[in-house]
Amino acid sequence: MTVDLTGIREAAEAQRGIVNETPLLVDEDLSRRFGAGVYLKAESLQRSGSFKIRGAYNKLRSLSEEERERGVISPSAGNHAQGVALAARLLGARATIVMPGFAPLTKVVATRELGAEVVLEGDTFDDAALKAEELRLEHGYTSVHAFDDERVISGQGTVGLEIAESLPGVSVAVVPIGGGGLISGIATALKALVPGVRVVGVQAEGFSSVGPSLQRGEPVAAAGSQTIADGIAVKRPGGLTLPIIRDLVDEVVEVTDDEIARAIAHCAQRNRLVVEGAGAAGAAALLSGKVAVGASDTVCTVLCGGNIDGDLLSRVIEQVMVRQGRYLLLRLSVLDRSGSLSPLIDSVAEAGANVVDIFHRRAVWLAPLGKVGLELVLEVRDGGHGDDVVEHLQNAGYHVEREEQGVWPE
Amino acid sequence: MTVDLTGIREAAEAQRGIVNETPLLVDEDLSRRFGAGVYLKAESLQRSGSFKIRGAYNKLRSLSEEERERGVISPSAGNHAQGVALAARLLGARATIVMPGFAPLTKVVATRELGAEVVLEGDTFDDAALKAEELRLEHGYTSVHAFDDERVISGQGTVGLEIAESLPGVSVAVVPIGGGGLISGIATALKALVPGVRVVGVQAEGFSSVGPSLQRGEPVAAAGSQTIADGIAVKRPGGLTLPIIRDLVDEVVEVTDDEIARAIAHCAQRNRLVVEGAGAAGAAALLSGKVAVGASDTVCTVLCGGNIDGDLLSRVIEQVMVRQGRYLLLRLSVLDRSGSLSPLIDSVAEAGANVVDIFHRRAVWLAPLGKVGLELVLEVRDGGHGDDVVEHLQNAGYHVEREEQGVWPE
Repeated sequence: MTVDLTGIREAAEAQRGIVNETPLLVDEDLSRRFGAGVYLKAESLQRSGSFKIRGAYNKLRSLSEEERERGVISPSAGNHAQGVALAARLLGARATIVMPGFAPLTKVVATRELGAEVVLEGDTFDDAALKAEELRLEHGYTSVHAFDDERVISGQGTVGLEIAESLPGVSVAVVPIGGGGLISGIATALKALVPGVRVVGVQAEGFSSVGPSLQRGEPVAAAGSQTIADGIAVKRPGGLTLPIIRDLVDEVVEVTDDEIARAIAHCAQRNRLVVEGAGAAGAAALLSGKVAVGASDTVCTVLCGGNIDGDLLSRVIEQVMVRQGRYLLLRLSVLDRSGSLSPLIDSVAEAGANVVDIFHRRAVWLAPLGKVGLELVLEVRDGGHGDDVVEHLQNAGYHVEREEQGVWPE
Repeated sequence: MTVDLTGIREAAEAQRGIVNETPLLVDEDLSRRFGAGVYLKAESLQRSGSFKIRGAYNKLRSLSEEERERGVISPSAGNHAQGVALAARLLGARATIVMPGFAPLTKVVATRELGAEVVLEGDTFDDAALKAEELRLEHGYTSVHAFDDERVISGQGTVGLEIAESLPGVSVAVVPIGGGGLISGIATALKALVPGVRVVGVQAEGFSSVGPSLQRGEPVAAAGSQTIADGIAVKRPGGLTLPIIRDLVDEVVEVTDDEIARAIAHCAQRNRLVVEGAGAAGAAALLSGKVAVGASDTVCTVLCGGNIDGDLLSRVIEQVMVRQGRYLLLRLSVLDRSGSLSPLIDSVAEAGANVVDIFHRRAVWLAPLGKVGLELVLEVRDGGHGDDVVEHLQNAGYHVEREEQGVWPE
């Protein structure tokens, strides 16, 4: 069996009514910037929160009754775990997922809620993979690879079919690459159906293994250790996916964590969609101008997943607000006596700013004796409003030092 | 002209290809809780971020060439502003929006980006409304009411048509009520098309004017002053919408800000959708058990808007995480000498917790002399993990006081 349009069409037929046909949404902001049509394929709204159910369903439906009863196994700390668990539940198969011990509890809980058994093992993903192999041999489970499997790739390819159907004029498809399963499937479908379409892959900085792997002619590991796009933090492409990428993907670009964070905020604030780091990688490539787009282009990027922890989502939004000048950090001093704080706070309110934090700095800083140092964190409407607030405080007689907003040392 | 199915169908026909047919998504979590099908009509993914474009488009398309050239006007600090601005741009009309001076800059900018002129006037919504009336008389503008207009109501009713088409078995529709335009349109469509369907309205606490208005037989103002669901913070229903609500809406329930906040987090974390307070009101009513749902029911709630400020969204998510026990507040003490902090931090790390904040409390608190008081804010995986962390620190010899997480005094 190879990966081709026929296999992808069969996968689409089999999953009808079970796997969502996800919405294709216009990104009005990106469309305006490029003067071109830019669309988002919202796989973040897929069942289990990512495209992974497509490949897992296509794999598991091919197993015999007996194989399903014995069960399937996968090492995964990510969306593949939930995709396999859901596919197994839908097809009446047993599923075991091995996760490294550091796996976030939210992922463990979500996978268990879908009915899979979760085994926590070891300190690295490789430990979990070894354990999965051990359990497979011991129990006769069928292994479900996250990307390097024809049926899995064909299942992911159904995303490409849906894009071709709902956006037949697509000229550029921008698709995140981890192990390469999603882009291999999508490229196979799109190149067969849409003449002249350009397929652009996006990798996370530190995990861009495709370039070196293509040069070497075999999968080469990337050096990366950390990215907020954990869904594409895969060390190397697969033996099956690499040749498909070589033949069908036109170019591969790389995005930084900072670009991904801005894209997460863009999706939330401009498109009202919650996406995870990997899910935002394509939007990040577009927002940062790394993909050439002409006015006659019709662009589609795949928001491949939406499983982001609430803590990370709120931190990303806050950091983007800092960059937008929504917070003001000031140092100033007031007389060290009762009643001297109140006029300062009044002055802040008059200027229309909101107090987020106040720190009294009695020691440590050499404030003039008889005065007390204050650090103020204020919320303002934007950069210009921040300037107005500083001016207002200065006119009220305060000597204000403004802290520039830079990047905290890593 | 009255509001009826024919007018709603005409509105749907006219807006085809211009206004989005928004996705209908399964809420798998709510469906599991109720053992029933629960669906979300995601108007948060509508153009301009709410359903308002539907009514505004249906109104503006009925104006003469000359009326469009002279222009339309509305007082609005909310989604209606963006809906009118977008409809005007699409139909080649001039639009002026009057907002009170306190309108968030994001709304001002978004409305201007859509091509409308924004006038800022006064300290209250009523001031803005007076100014709009003044400008209307001065310039001969056509006024576009946010809800009390047959054409606007018919436009909003197209949401109901789409629900009836994609979910013909719907038995309960849960719809937020501000002025009542959306629910009047939806109820008109659904009651005509789906025999036996129950329509439930949802109002924000303090703004639940429908009950008293129905009792009195005319619109009565609610007392409310503040809600995070600003999109439905409307003082009274309209003269047109109230009789429709009386005839077609089966019941009206009320939700609190706290319930709305949980529903915003539910939509973001469980359904990967960014919704604003008003948009989450229907989900809040379902999550809090205020709507009776049986196992044979098919429920649809309308997520009517997604225009939430990033700051509010991140605060809501953080507060829900606090309630879920994801943060631990501890008071303890260590010896006041170099090197005594490090073993504590090691102990925290061993327990798998993450340090969010450390405060040294040398003065103020009566820590034993020779010791220094510490306040620690830790991030943990959940309530149970929090207990484990406290036990781990106690076993390591620290006397730990845990601060209960309550609600800050209002």
